[in-house]
Amino acid sequence: MTSRYINDLCQAEVFFKCENFQRGGSYKLRGALNATLSLSDNQIAKGIGTHSSGNFAQAVALAANIVSTRAYVVMPENAPDIKRKATLGYGAELTLCAPTIQAREMALTQIVASHGISPLHPSNDIPVIIGQGTCAYELLQDMPDLEYIIAPVGGGGVSAGSIIAAQHFSDRAKVIGAEPTNADDAYRSLQAGKILPSKHPDTIADGLRTQLGSHNFPIIAKYIDQIILVDEDEIISAMLLVWQRMKIIIEPSSATTLAAVIKNKSLFKHQKVGLIITGGNVDLFNLPF
Amino acid sequence: MTSRYINDLCQAEVFFKCENFQRGGSYKLRGALNATLSLSDNQIAKGIGTHSSGNFAQAVALAANIVSTRAYVVMPENAPDIKRKATLGYGAELTLCAPTIQAREMALTQIVASHGISPLHPSNDIPVIIGQGTCAYELLQDMPDLEYIIAPVGGGGVSAGSIIAAQHFSDRAKVIGAEPTNADDAYRSLQAGKILPSKHPDTIADGLRTQLGSHNFPIIAKYIDQIILVDEDEIISAMLLVWQRMKIIIEPSSATTLAAVIKNKSLFKHQKVGLIITGGNVDLFNLPF
Repeated sequence: MTSRYINDLCQAEVFFKCENFQRGGSYKLRGALNATLSLSDNQIAKGIGTHSSGNFAQAVALAANIVSTRAYVVMPENAPDIKRKATLGYGAELTLCAPTIQAREMALTQIVASHGISPLHPSNDIPVIIGQGTCAYELLQDMPDLEYIIAPVGGGGVSAGSIIAAQHFSDRAKVIGAEPTNADDAYRSLQAGKILPSKHPDTIADGLRTQLGSHNFPIIAKYIDQIILVDEDEIISAMLLVWQRMKIIIEPSSATTLAAVIKNKSLFKHQKVGLIITGGNVDLFNLPF
Repeated sequence: MTSRYINDLCQAEVFFKCENFQRGGSYKLRGALNATLSLSDNQIAKGIGTHSSGNFAQAVALAANIVSTRAYVVMPENAPDIKRKATLGYGAELTLCAPTIQAREMALTQIVASHGISPLHPSNDIPVIIGQGTCAYELLQDMPDLEYIIAPVGGGGVSAGSIIAAQHFSDRAKVIGAEPTNADDAYRSLQAGKILPSKHPDTIADGLRTQLGSHNFPIIAKYIDQIILVDEDEIISAMLLVWQRMKIIIEPSSATTLAAVIKNKSLFKHQKVGLIITGGNVDLFNLPF
């Protein structure tokens, strides 16, 4: 999608790759499905699982649904009711646990042990990364002459995947990461040349509170053009602008990409820029504006 | 656009014609532009105008912009700031007046007298009706085998236009009107066989608070399949469902169409139904949910 208003505002041609319209409300199905289809028939038959409080839970439930196997999803007991219901609605078996990473991992480990299922990681896994890269691949099919692709950086799956797609399917597109200043572990890791821990990420962009992964880091470190940091008010303003002008619902994580363009107009002036709009799963009863 | 979830819910195939993505945020540009292009070159050069507190104001401003003439828009002084700004942003000359229909008409009459412009009515005008009918025309181009088209009924422009399009470009599609129970002048007028006044319309569907027009009534009276009344809570529920599941922003007037399907599932079961999603101009700081 495009917006004349946003193009005028940015003095650039901005193309929105709308994964908010994807099944499950985010791009996560791409990676979940590619990872599932990379398993053997025997593994698929036993089922897949994950622990997630976010979009990957729905993606795994949907992927299992598509290949006609069972999904086992571990969620912290404080996960929003709407995400529980959506995951159940796609037919997954839901296990609630204490809201700690230890409890989540332990619950999933027990399910793996007792059911022999294959656990899927939301971002730090090569088949998942490749799957997430199909967003940028499709964007480049539609717009082969993009100069930039901007993807949010959280665990690093969609940014690393976008890099791989740009390397293979474009002769010019540079990939830029957009990251909240309040969850800047990827930015700091790039500068340090090694993965640094995500310290108390406190951002409205809930999909980007995760830790950059070990499979994603080397791809990003080697090939990303740069990571642009954006502040909370810039994320919220960009999100509101898209809702008001484009009439589409995007989640805060997605809005980091447009915020990065608005913050750096001179860099993108007169350029063709593709934004990975990662999803639209927002709690409509708890909006930041 | 389509939604698997909504199709399953309704046990029907429901197609959304998304005029929320139209320039100006609603279908109103279609009628405004067709009416403008129906004027003589001399008339166009003198400019166009309207009085409106809603979507037609922006549409007239945009239409003038497109044909490179001036637009004069009269708005009540209590019109939302965002609508004033959008209308000004499209380059219109804005006149504020007291928030009464008399003050609005008087202000426009004065502008017509002093500038020789052509006033445009938002709905009760044949070139406007024909223009609004191009939504249904395009929907039928994409989906020639629709059994039903549902359009909201306010002034009657888009419902009468949809009827004309269905008569000319479909051999089967019936047009149904969706109207709020709290603003049921068209429903009552159909039963009475003559236009009855709109009495204290009190509905969240702000675009449908207007009076059915004299040019629209005979078209609707003769050819509409039926008008389905929907209650306020049904409108709000349908609107919320579309926001949550389809990730698009639609205004309450548009949600009447889906509410009509959900309220009458047996009528639409296994049918192909097109909905005219009239617009997406919503005050995001004042949502009904």
